[in-house]
Amino acid sequence: MRVVDIIQKKRDKQPLSDAEIRFLLENYLSGDVPDYQLSAFLMAVYFNGMNDEELFEFTDVMMNSGDLIDFAGINRFLIDKHSTGGVGDKTSIALAPLLSAFGIGTAKLSGKGLGHTGGTIDKFESIAGFSFPQTREELVNVVNSTGIGIMGYSDSIVPLDKQLYALRDVTGTVPSIPLIASSIMSKKLAVHADGIILDVKVGNGAFMKDIDQAKKLADTMLRIGKRFDRNIMVVLSNMDQPLGNAVGNSLEVIEAIETLKGLGPEDFTELVVTLAGIALLMKKDVKTLEEGIEKANDMINSDVVLDNLKAFIKACGGDEKIVNDYTRLPIGRETREVVSMKEGYIHRIMAEDIGKAAMILGAGRATKDDVIDHGVGVVLRKKVGDTVQTGESLATIYYNDMEHVDSANKMILGAYKVEPHETSTPLVIKEILK
Amino acid sequence: MRVVDIIQKKRDKQPLSDAEIRFLLENYLSGDVPDYQLSAFLMAVYFNGMNDEELFEFTDVMMNSGDLIDFAGINRFLIDKHSTGGVGDKTSIALAPLLSAFGIGTAKLSGKGLGHTGGTIDKFESIAGFSFPQTREELVNVVNSTGIGIMGYSDSIVPLDKQLYALRDVTGTVPSIPLIASSIMSKKLAVHADGIILDVKVGNGAFMKDIDQAKKLADTMLRIGKRFDRNIMVVLSNMDQPLGNAVGNSLEVIEAIETLKGLGPEDFTELVVTLAGIALLMKKDVKTLEEGIEKANDMINSDVVLDNLKAFIKACGGDEKIVNDYTRLPIGRETREVVSMKEGYIHRIMAEDIGKAAMILGAGRATKDDVIDHGVGVVLRKKVGDTVQTGESLATIYYNDMEHVDSANKMILGAYKVEPHETSTPLVIKEILK
Repeated sequence: MRVVDIIQKKRDKQPLSDAEIRFLLENYLSGDVPDYQLSAFLMAVYFNGMNDEELFEFTDVMMNSGDLIDFAGINRFLIDKHSTGGVGDKTSIALAPLLSAFGIGTAKLSGKGLGHTGGTIDKFESIAGFSFPQTREELVNVVNSTGIGIMGYSDSIVPLDKQLYALRDVTGTVPSIPLIASSIMSKKLAVHADGIILDVKVGNGAFMKDIDQAKKLADTMLRIGKRFDRNIMVVLSNMDQPLGNAVGNSLEVIEAIETLKGLGPEDFTELVVTLAGIALLMKKDVKTLEEGIEKANDMINSDVVLDNLKAFIKACGGDEKIVNDYTRLPIGRETREVVSMKEGYIHRIMAEDIGKAAMILGAGRATKDDVIDHGVGVVLRKKVGDTVQTGESLATIYYNDMEHVDSANKMILGAYKVEPHETSTPLVIKEILK
Repeated sequence: MRVVDIIQKKRDKQPLSDAEIRFLLENYLSGDVPDYQLSAFLMAVYFNGMNDEELFEFTDVMMNSGDLIDFAGINRFLIDKHSTGGVGDKTSIALAPLLSAFGIGTAKLSGKGLGHTGGTIDKFESIAGFSFPQTREELVNVVNSTGIGIMGYSDSIVPLDKQLYALRDVTGTVPSIPLIASSIMSKKLAVHADGIILDVKVGNGAFMKDIDQAKKLADTMLRIGKRFDRNIMVVLSNMDQPLGNAVGNSLEVIEAIETLKGLGPEDFTELVVTLAGIALLMKKDVKTLEEGIEKANDMINSDVVLDNLKAFIKACGGDEKIVNDYTRLPIGRETREVVSMKEGYIHRIMAEDIGKAAMILGAGRATKDDVIDHGVGVVLRKKVGDTVQTGESLATIYYNDMEHVDSANKMILGAYKVEPHETSTPLVIKEILK
């Protein structure tokens, strides 16, 4: 078997056998296939896609390239909720303790943020002393005691994805539905949860800019999940404006906690209870999604949920008092209001620009080695559909260092489109697929 | 400027600026752009092609990546005739001394054979003592004294092409018209001849399998040539069967000499006089191609042509007596007749299979480090349009080592298609473009 023949077959739209896919990827992982052959192959995949058999085998080899994590010895029904990445997406922080209140465990691997999208790890690490479980044993202990199992990706889980992603990133082969789907799904399949809920973000602040692409990705991931006999559902949710109001690590932790106190933004609250409703439906605790959402709505601001969050933070060595005292979190010392130059209705907030503004303030990483500042970020005062007066604040910038405040201000102002005529409030949940 | 942005633009069919093309290639040549980025770019070019501006700049950077060869101090009109590679193509050996008889010099760089196609260098190197000019000075001396300037490619001429070709070869990015055209033309433009004649082979034994692809390549090369103000013409010639009868280095030298004695195969003779006619037209020695061909036909078997060949061989340190005494050439000690199993008319001879048969006998290289045997090869006894009886020889195998003779026999037999009904003799010259 020659690698160049495999590349040529893909280039010429001839189907590849399981053996060919396996040969290519396993030899790439072992270092016997060089980067320059794999990058040519990936570009051919960008143009010609993969059929389902190729996709399943590709995902299978990826998944099995490293350790698999099971949760033997845990009796809870386990949910792995994963988002494709957005701006202001602090969903896991609120959802995990809410699910725990229903006896549903969370079992997920989280990533660090890169570019304009944040990562769950960075958000939790705003909390003094907090450190994610490092080993499977620690994770199992934390899940057993709190119902919440979130850990960071380690290099031993799907190492092939890490290698492939680094190559795709520099060779223009990131935006390929089969490559994105197999990358996400191989990591989901490597962790054996009872239900997988994928939150595919759609809009200018998301990887998938339009609903058609998002649906294609969702369908592809559903097919992979089913092929591997997993209980899986997909939510397509709006990322045409940031989710909630807070963007930045500590600020998002606070917003998630406020939501569990019944004071959260409407859009974010809706997404959290919908995801919880889906989890209840997957666990068969309810017969319909509506029933599940109702139960989640009744539960979300009860003390038991906050207690679950505190227990998780404590189990991870963090300062659980932050839940009742936000001053214990690092918050940018200075603030600047981003002031509207005109009056009217907010028609659009470019989520990507808000994410980038937060990033340049220090809330995110431009490259993976950047050190982030957990206290900085942006809190939106106006969202799509709201009215604004000239001179009124659109958003508040939290910062520690003057250097990038003017640029951030400009970016945020540019992200807002204010028009004289009314507009409707966008739906958070665009579609639910299974 | 980031390489990944250049790759993405090509992937998304956005035109690249001259600066972007130059940045990419120059940094690749210097080692600052890694192979894996260039191979992804090349695959994107395979799918999306290049527009003319990109192509011209690509060719320009290639051409100027190494030494340029001019022929200052030579008064002759200089022709660079180049073939895209075929089976049994010994054209340069006969054409160069013929042109010299008209006072037209040949100035060309030749390659070694690879795969099923042979190279002019290997053919001349069948001659004892023969060694091509190594430096520009030696080349100029040989042209001045004999009118024939053929040398092997050195690493200092278009080094970028060598690097790119090696990468394309293992990444499935060889068959791309703009990449092929810029590869050929950069090497033609690096040598400053007064006229460029490109012989684009078309058919199963050639790189271009069908006439449409060949025309596209021809048009592309013509556009590049004209952009660089070169006098250029293209012949599309048949490679659906081998050119002439002999395939293998010494055997082809003999056939070329026989042709200069008026005893050559009809198709090969026709190609040589047509190319000479084109050269006379380019030099403006004649008014029409027909007139040029007539002059070439009158000249081809005159003694002066043979004397020119002898002078060239001698100037290159070779044994010029081979011209009158073929026993001084290495010829396979043993022969085997490939016998027809049926009677009828020859409808087709798969040139590629004949080339491969010669290669496995040792006449060519499977990989560029293989050592070749100059004496072995195949002489076709029947060509398309001929009749054959059962038991009659289709071809003669010349060999030194028994090992691959049975396989070669089988391949040659398989290459011949014998049918009961008559068929016409194919044209050698399919089209002439300028």
